[in-house]
Amino acid sequence: MTNLTKRSNRPKEKDIVITRSAQGFESFREPFRSTLKSIEPIGKDLLSAAQAKIDNKTKPLGSLGKLEDLAVQLCLIQKKLNPRLYRKSMFVFAADHGIVEEGVSAYPSEVTGQMVKNFLEGGAAINVLCRQCGIDIRVVDMGVAGDIENHPLLLNKKVRKGTRNFALAPAMTPEETVSAVQNGAEVFLNEYESNPIDIVGLGDMGIGNTSSATAIICAICDISPAEATGRGTGIDYKALKHKAEVIERALRFHRPNPKDALDVLQKVGGFEIAGIAGAALAAASKRTAVVLDGVISTAGGLIAYLINPNIQGFLISGHRSVEPAQETALAFMELEPLVDLNMRLGEGTGAALAIHFAEAAARIMREMASFEEAGVTKKI
Amino acid sequence: MTNLTKRSNRPKEKDIVITRSAQGFESFREPFRSTLKSIEPIGKDLLSAAQAKIDNKTKPLGSLGKLEDLAVQLCLIQKKLNPRLYRKSMFVFAADHGIVEEGVSAYPSEVTGQMVKNFLEGGAAINVLCRQCGIDIRVVDMGVAGDIENHPLLLNKKVRKGTRNFALAPAMTPEETVSAVQNGAEVFLNEYESNPIDIVGLGDMGIGNTSSATAIICAICDISPAEATGRGTGIDYKALKHKAEVIERALRFHRPNPKDALDVLQKVGGFEIAGIAGAALAAASKRTAVVLDGVISTAGGLIAYLINPNIQGFLISGHRSVEPAQETALAFMELEPLVDLNMRLGEGTGAALAIHFAEAAARIMREMASFEEAGVTKKI
Repeated sequence: MTNLTKRSNRPKEKDIVITRSAQGFESFREPFRSTLKSIEPIGKDLLSAAQAKIDNKTKPLGSLGKLEDLAVQLCLIQKKLNPRLYRKSMFVFAADHGIVEEGVSAYPSEVTGQMVKNFLEGGAAINVLCRQCGIDIRVVDMGVAGDIENHPLLLNKKVRKGTRNFALAPAMTPEETVSAVQNGAEVFLNEYESNPIDIVGLGDMGIGNTSSATAIICAICDISPAEATGRGTGIDYKALKHKAEVIERALRFHRPNPKDALDVLQKVGGFEIAGIAGAALAAASKRTAVVLDGVISTAGGLIAYLINPNIQGFLISGHRSVEPAQETALAFMELEPLVDLNMRLGEGTGAALAIHFAEAAARIMREMASFEEAGVTKKI
Repeated sequence: MTNLTKRSNRPKEKDIVITRSAQGFESFREPFRSTLKSIEPIGKDLLSAAQAKIDNKTKPLGSLGKLEDLAVQLCLIQKKLNPRLYRKSMFVFAADHGIVEEGVSAYPSEVTGQMVKNFLEGGAAINVLCRQCGIDIRVVDMGVAGDIENHPLLLNKKVRKGTRNFALAPAMTPEETVSAVQNGAEVFLNEYESNPIDIVGLGDMGIGNTSSATAIICAICDISPAEATGRGTGIDYKALKHKAEVIERALRFHRPNPKDALDVLQKVGGFEIAGIAGAALAAASKRTAVVLDGVISTAGGLIAYLINPNIQGFLISGHRSVEPAQETALAFMELEPLVDLNMRLGEGTGAALAIHFAEAAARIMREMASFEEAGVTKKI
């Protein structure tokens, strides 16, 4: 836990339903509004049985560390003591950002569309990591500035050709904001209907999107851009300072309501971040485990959490990003990252590696012998 | 890097050959002596080409963090720019420890043999994690107190039925020490001859062995047991204090020569730790990547490193253990752990998870598109 984190804005258990039904749900159309309402808290019915089961495996108590917590979480999510990850999926949400005009990124916007093509052709890091683990991948055009040719792995959910420059105007209209979140949910639910998904990684692509993600996290978690802004794809110190100032100024100008996820998203968000939020909410409604990636994906998770905090128990933080804002958002949601390899690529790469850990946790729950089964003496 | 670490005893580049040929190699018999001499430094011939290749993949420079370093290391080890891990193996070295008489462990010695049977039946955590990743597993009886029935996965290299209680006497005779290291090497080389191994994890099983591993690390790295001793399988604070005192007293009594790996091993070591050291050295002689596990495996790696520091470039630290001594040993060898999940089980479990990362790194080097191949614009 970091001293960057102020939890004052975190919804209290008892506030949750009231806050959300008052500010969030009715902005959405059916069927998404019903999806939102259908998200139940993860539930603790199996908690003691799951904990007893893992405690009785042939190993010193707690010695598998975070893998044990993950194993228990998967039991709760799947409501069974033998969790299994049949279908593992990765959605990479892509969009462009008007804020790039302010010189906040080391790469030009055209790279977003180029990387989407790279994903579709299987040449990016996320493709490699998904192939390694048997994770199927879908790429979602939420708002790429360029046109992307049809492809079997491409889902076209473009809301607009990139957001507006949030240094000058709200990033999206209220209607675009709602559509983007709903589109993310639709994408997940359509895939889920064709073949249920047991665990989903939510990745991103969008030049300029660390600026948007940082602005979202600063607005919701009440920290300053000077502390929270990172180097994104690799800007130098001078550009970093400029980026933090751009975000600072924009937040002062827009004054987003930190309790209203849609207001934050509309003013400083991104279409891919909105899509991630929608997909996370839809996944939780189906009791699918949701693996967040780096700072962008975590910002999407944070938006989803603010819309319906019941998703908390379905969320897994895939990896610790180098971006400072991520830690604050994770602390806000009481999540701890699994993979810690100094990565800062996005795309879902940290989530893909973490899905291997989740698979390991599920297998440990299913396959490891108990002290009784193995005839091993317990602790003295 | 920790302030626990004093590097004064770390061999200087130029001292290496002299120190070792004077104190180490001639203690061993052929063919192991030749194996030791045949270990070349990893070599840097391909370093700039490998670095250029990873830098030119479609991602911001350095954004895959430690996976990139790992990818480059695998290139250097395999002397090619398309590293591949065909055969992945795990050796679990098991032995008992006389020091258990001092009340340093939460489990009785009989658990070592019981867990060996569990490994052979496929019910332990290491079995689960190896199955998940296609890692074949071998269990080596280096000195288990009980008798273990024959099994296709069991390699019988028992030196003695457990070490002597090192609080009272040297753990092994000089002859047993040499045999144990050589046995570890033989086990690896026999398997390697039947089918080459590209990456090997080195795990351990031995009730009482965190005491031995901690004593080894304290002796070699010159830190105090009060700082370095951990809770092993899960002793309470009082037992922890006692364990540190037992180690402290033993080190004062034996005064092992910190520059002489065999002296340290003989006085406070364990047969499985010696086996791990021998296997690490043999693997490096074949240019096989060696993945260390927790504090026991790392102590074995440290012994190997002291015998021939040329192995350094072949070593990968699989995971960060909860045991405090491990960090000191890793710093001594200039290694950084990959997995960090608060694990403290041993068996090779952290190494098995890290082998997934190594596989990811190798695939990234082979499969990811370059900027040119994918037609993606480079940094502004």
